[in-house]
Amino acid sequence: MNTAFLSNEIRKKGSFLCVGIDPVPELLPDHLKGQKDSLIQFCTAIVDATAPYCVAYKPNIAFFEAYGIPGWQALEQLIGYIKTNYPDHFTIADAKRGDIGNTAKAYAKAFFEVLNFDAITLSPYMGVETIEPYLAYEDKTAIVLALTSNHGAFDFQWNEDGKGPHLVEKVVAKTLELASSDRIMFVVGATQVAQLRALRALAPDSFFLMPGIGAQGGSLTAAFDAAKTKEVGLIVNSSRGIIYASSRTDFAEAAAKEAQRLQHQMQTLLYI
Amino acid sequence: MNTAFLSNEIRKKGSFLCVGIDPVPELLPDHLKGQKDSLIQFCTAIVDATAPYCVAYKPNIAFFEAYGIPGWQALEQLIGYIKTNYPDHFTIADAKRGDIGNTAKAYAKAFFEVLNFDAITLSPYMGVETIEPYLAYEDKTAIVLALTSNHGAFDFQWNEDGKGPHLVEKVVAKTLELASSDRIMFVVGATQVAQLRALRALAPDSFFLMPGIGAQGGSLTAAFDAAKTKEVGLIVNSSRGIIYASSRTDFAEAAAKEAQRLQHQMQTLLYI
Repeated sequence: MNTAFLSNEIRKKGSFLCVGIDPVPELLPDHLKGQKDSLIQFCTAIVDATAPYCVAYKPNIAFFEAYGIPGWQALEQLIGYIKTNYPDHFTIADAKRGDIGNTAKAYAKAFFEVLNFDAITLSPYMGVETIEPYLAYEDKTAIVLALTSNHGAFDFQWNEDGKGPHLVEKVVAKTLELASSDRIMFVVGATQVAQLRALRALAPDSFFLMPGIGAQGGSLTAAFDAAKTKEVGLIVNSSRGIIYASSRTDFAEAAAKEAQRLQHQMQTLLYI
Repeated sequence: MNTAFLSNEIRKKGSFLCVGIDPVPELLPDHLKGQKDSLIQFCTAIVDATAPYCVAYKPNIAFFEAYGIPGWQALEQLIGYIKTNYPDHFTIADAKRGDIGNTAKAYAKAFFEVLNFDAITLSPYMGVETIEPYLAYEDKTAIVLALTSNHGAFDFQWNEDGKGPHLVEKVVAKTLELASSDRIMFVVGATQVAQLRALRALAPDSFFLMPGIGAQGGSLTAAFDAAKTKEVGLIVNSSRGIIYASSRTDFAEAAAKEAQRLQHQMQTLLYI
């Protein structure tokens, strides 16, 4: 599954929505709390409810690891469920792995072979050799952290004092030396509108995965306007706003409603 | 378990050796390959053989994830085995996690509660808010990537062109604003001797976890001379050189011999 396929799905559905699946135990609907299989029940219900309105799913691996082995079992079940029932949805392991050589190969095996994700998020701190082993999988995509949506992005990624080139500029330029734009995406926060045009200029053909709308305060319209390309070129993630839209038995319907609301906004932006 | 305890163990044993446990399936001893439980058999045999000569174990999480759920089961068994049989050994999850807020809290739960490691390696790309949630555990240690041992360290961590401050300098300074030196360690490659004194000056009281001797070419003596403090202040990791010292049935004896050889060198350095 490549970015051309993703562009096509976006146009077909009038949506560039990615649903982030962050199952925090305390935030699960009350009637599921403490139940056996509550994790997988919650996740698959969210997937079924939102599938018509999104093009991608992004399980956040931390929340599965925090459950220990039952969490990994649920993650395996979830990716299997999506692949079987929604094979055209793009699946992203939000894992932010970042290591070299054999270690990176082992992570690639874990997420691309054992779990069969289409893409993984990667942290480039240790250099671009952390990204190369994932590119050996021709039908998979590496999604590299560039300018993230959090306040701490300005600790290291962007020099507010203006001294020297910004780290994110070096990361984008050096990453794009590795492979063509259809093999690599970048994480760029929807909150970082002031920097978005500069980053788009550095990576004119790359897809951006954009977190930060909703709870974090990013504007969908502003992010779209600054980051869009001819091939759309972005997917926007929403997690909490969708999956915790209700904590009652109607959580799936509420998630569908919120995903549909975003999809409507996206459709309008796509066809202006 | 804090760094004062670690200093004490180092002096008691005449060793600042950390054994890295990187179980690559293809490199397991031939007689274990394909056997049920080969992973945990291999790891516990290495631990038993090397325990007298080292003060720390550092399982590399990628190699367990690559086995899927059986890998996580083996990791749970392994940490339980070390905690039960060698409770004075410092245990490091080499996970290089790096995420914010609730996600970081979930990773901290996974490695400090579900798996009960003493420490975890962390990647600071997203800012120091990625480190804070781990510091909430008072008896645990955050080990932050600073200047890593790989060639790619010079992609972003160190500016070879001399433009602006080095990223690693910013990372060390900003991290040390978070907590006292006994709560935080840094990963500094034993290969980076030219930069070691500068980094030690920036973090005079922090323990360094130093990979890079052996296969990667770093010198134990040079690393010790440049990085040592009054409290020793460093542990040096060796993985492949020890755990793959032999691929035959004598792998554990060969691992013990290599660990002992390094321990002898370390003892000499400590008591010069």
